[in-house]
Formats: sequence, structure tokens, C-alpha cells
Amino acid sequence: MEAFNDFRKQSLLLIEKEMENFIKEYTTNDQLKEAMLYSIHAGGKRFRPLLVLAAIRSFNKNVQTHDYQVAAALEMIHTYSLIHDDLPAMDDDDLRRGKPTNHKVFGEAHAILAGDGLLTAAFQLVALSQIESDQKILLIQLLSKAAGTQGMVAGQAGDLQGEKQSLSLAELADVHEKKTGALIEFALLAGGILAEQPEEIVDLLGVFAKHLGLAFQIKDDLLDATSSEEELGKQVGRDEVLNKSTYPSLLGLEGAKKALEEQLTLGSDTLATIKQTSSEFHLELLQELLEQLRLG
Amino acid sequence: MEAFNDFRKQSLLLIEKEMENFIKEYTTNDQLKEAMLYSIHAGGKRFRPLLVLAAIRSFNKNVQTHDYQVAAALEMIHTYSLIHDDLPAMDDDDLRRGKPTNHKVFGEAHAILAGDGLLTAAFQLVALSQIESDQKILLIQLLSKAAGTQGMVAGQAGDLQGEKQSLSLAELADVHEKKTGALIEFALLAGGILAEQPEEIVDLLGVFAKHLGLAFQIKDDLLDATSSEEELGKQVGRDEVLNKSTYPSLLGLEGAKKALEEQLTLGSDTLATIKQTSSEFHLELLQELLEQLRLG
Repeated sequence: MEAFNDFRKQSLLLIEKEMENFIKEYTTNDQLKEAMLYSIHAGGKRFRPLLVLAAIRSFNKNVQTHDYQVAAALEMIHTYSLIHDDLPAMDDDDLRRGKPTNHKVFGEAHAILAGDGLLTAAFQLVALSQIESDQKILLIQLLSKAAGTQGMVAGQAGDLQGEKQSLSLAELADVHEKKTGALIEFALLAGGILAEQPEEIVDLLGVFAKHLGLAFQIKDDLLDATSSEEELGKQVGRDEVLNKSTYPSLLGLEGAKKALEEQLTLGSDTLATIKQTSSEFHLELLQELLEQLRLG
Repeated sequence: MEAFNDFRKQSLLLIEKEMENFIKEYTTNDQLKEAMLYSIHAGGKRFRPLLVLAAIRSFNKNVQTHDYQVAAALEMIHTYSLIHDDLPAMDDDDLRRGKPTNHKVFGEAHAILAGDGLLTAAFQLVALSQIESDQKILLIQLLSKAAGTQGMVAGQAGDLQGEKQSLSLAELADVHEKKTGALIEFALLAGGILAEQPEEIVDLLGVFAKHLGLAFQIKDDLLDATSSEEELGKQVGRDEVLNKSTYPSLLGLEGAKKALEEQLTLGSDTLATIKQTSSEFHLELLQELLEQLRLG
């Protein structure tokens, strides 16, 4: 198993290349293309596509072109959601990853269309990929479920409603399970499916994803509450301004930190269970990705 | 072959039921669901899904559940595009089909999400339909191409740019071929594929679709230029206010009317060619749909 940093570096390049090539080849309108590429090139941790690839590599499989395509499609969906989320009618953010948000550069109309285009292109990319038909359909079913009205879009709607009323911890967990958890879950399920793992293992990857997703969101809330704009590359303290229910607002800073630790431990335990179940499995890469969420 | 009006009436009910049932079952957030259903129930001609079903019936095939699912998915994509198109940052329309537009009722944020949700749900519906895997993938490839950055979304971007500069007739035709033509083309290709027709026939349906799509857009431009708000159920004269290039603005009213007639004749000729090529084909339903575009 290669070192995590090598895996990460090489993967980032190939994921970005895959997105860029697809958008360049399959977008006929130049301004639309430019707006889509702007947000694709704005960087970011590429957490979700890295998870897809890390899951595949964890079973000692070589990552193939179609695996990068699925990973790229997932990142395109994540990117579209950020563009729409930043719009004035939504979170009204001016800054994302240290750069002006899409609508600040291209205007709201083109930002809406760039998001619509990335969402549609993600399904097109998976549909055109060289994956066996039944597996491809399963992936499209899971991706549309994770991204749509049972997943991320439903979570965004719940999030909006959470700005107007305070949520209970259970309601907050449900919003986040949909808003960010669903795509993270897809990443791990897709990785398991692409690595041709049996259902039992894919299910365990799904359990790992739940803990990882929750940890991811608690960390995100903690960073918004405690970081500077310079550190984070986007406006901070927005949750408080918007009066959003967050883990720190419901549990306090210390409580939220403890909840994060708990989820990291549970995630780690699940990786150990997968290792016990499958002799092929190496947990190092996914463990490293989990560790990224530990507070520095 | 049943009478056109019977076909239309029965089909409309079943298309709407399919959309409604899917949204109700597959949307977990109540406000999001309400916003999506509002626009789904706002009526409209259901021109695109009717084309899918009319093409299938034209080959004497019974319309099956999965055919309604594809038709419903197409109408959901059309509906999402209207919701986003009506947003203040886009065409800024207050009225659609005689009712307040989605964002006027649910606010901009929920309207953006309702559109995102409908787009994603459309792919989910096709992916979950009972269609043989290879055919299903072909349909998802064609639908994402028609709806996305080589089709409708690219056309919307071109349309925005057309507000700022006047377009040539060729540029205008290209914008419309993408903005409205692509989904109309998908409708007929999908109908041919679902009716298990050979490639030669599916291609001819595509040729018919090009004429139908152009006629559709010219008629739309003519109605915007000549109707009252009451007749049309939406704001009229918007094209002129927005200084958009349209067929009437480029060809004059009489020239646009003549161009419409030409496309209707070419469409009719293509149906005759299909009839000569396939003994199974009955042209009446598609001819009637074409006739709907004749000026009253």
C-alpha cells in the first residue's frame, strides 16, 4: 500500500483532469464552460472523490479510468451544490476557498446554469463511463438518491428551515445526514461496488460512512465557529449570523469536540470490523482520511 | 388508432400521476415536496411527454408503465427548467401558466432547490424504471445530453447572452435547437427506442423532431409578440422588453409566420417518409401534435 500523501497527490491530479476534460469536451457554450471550470478549478479538499478511490485501493484493486469517472462525477455534484448554496438567495457567500464565489464572478444567472450544468454532466459522465451496465445503473440509482430529494437537496431544504427555527439534536443530525452525509455515503458504497466487494462489505462501508459523515459535519461547524476567514478561505461565523442550529450551538464547543471524537472512534472501530471480515482489506488509507477530521 | 383527444386526455392524467407519485414517495422534506408538486401541478401542455407516448403509439405499441416513467422524467426536467428560468436572476417572471411562479410562492431558495430536486429526480426515475439495462443507459445518456451542457442548459446560457447582443438567424436557431429543440428531440428518440424501432426509424424521428422543435420555438416567439397576458397565462412582450433576438424581431411578423409554415410542412413530409419506410407506422397522432403548432 502506497503512502497516503502519494495516493492523495496523484489522485487529486487525475480527478481534476477527468472533470476538466469532460467539461471541455461536453460543454458547447463558452461562457457556461468557463463558469463551470472556474468552480472546478477552485480547489478544495476533494474529500468525496478521494474516498471513492481510497475505498477501491483499500481492497488492493488498481484504480481504473471508469473509477476516476465516478469519482469526478461525485465531485461535480458536490461543486454544483456549493455554487447554488453560495447564491444570494441561499447562503449569500462572497468567498469560497479563498476566491470570489461563482456568482460574484459570472453573475447569478450563469452561476445557476453552471450548477445545473454540473449536476446534469455528472449523470452524463457516469452514463457514458465504461462500466458494466447493471453496475452502472446501480451507481446512477445510488447517486441520484444521495444527491436528490432523499439526500442532499432534501438536506439543503432542511438546512434552510433550520435558519428560521431551532432544531433538536436529532433533527440537526437528520439534516446533516442528508446534506453532507449522503454524498459521503455514496462515495464509500461506490468504492465498494467498483472494487467488486460483496454486499456485506459494502454495507459495512456504509456504516463507516455514517460516522465519517457526522464527524465531517461536526468539524465543519467547529471550524465555522472558531476559525478566522484567512484560515478557512471563506466567510466564517456565518452560522451564527444566520442563527443556524449547529453542533456547537446545541452542544457547546466542548460538547461538539467530544461528539467529533466519538464519531472518529466509531469510524475507526468500523474499519477494524471490515478488516476482520475481509482479508483483502487494508485500512490505512481510509484511516488516514478519517484522521484528517481530527482537530489540529 | 384512437382519436387524438382521447389519447391526449388519458395520457395527461397518467403522466401527471406518475410525476406526483414519484415525488411524493421519493422526497423526504415536506416544504421541498410542496414546492416541487406546485410546479408539477401548474398544468401546461405536457407537449414533450405527449410526444414520447405518441411516438410509441404510432408504432401500434401499447404504452407501458416504464414508458410513462420516461415521459414523466422528461416533463420533470422541463418543469425544473421553467422554475430556474423564471427566477429573478434569469427571466424574472412573476406569472407562469396563469399562476404565480414558484419563487413567488416559496421564495427563491426553495425554488432553486425545487428545480435541483426535479432534475435529480428525473434521472432517479429513469434509473429505477423497469427498462432493460442497456436501453435504460442509452436513455440516460440521451437525456443528460439533451438536458445538459450540450443541450438545454447550453441553450439557456446562449439565450442569456442573446439578451446582451443581437444574434444572427443561424445563432438564434442554434440557441433554440439547444434550449427547446434538444428535449423535443429526446422525446421522439426515446419514443422510437421504447417502441423498439430500428436505428433508421429512430433517426427519421430525430429529423422530424428538428422541424417540430423549430416550429415550436417560432410559434412561442410569435405568441409572445402578439398575445395578451390573459390568453397566454404569463407575462407577454417580455422578449421585446429584454431586447431578445427572436424570429419576429429578425424576420418580421410575416416572415416568422412563413418560417413556421415551412417547418410544419417539412415536419409533415418527414412523417410521410417514416410511413413509407415502416409499414407499422401510423402518422396521425404525431401529425395532430404538429398541427397544434399551426397558428389559429
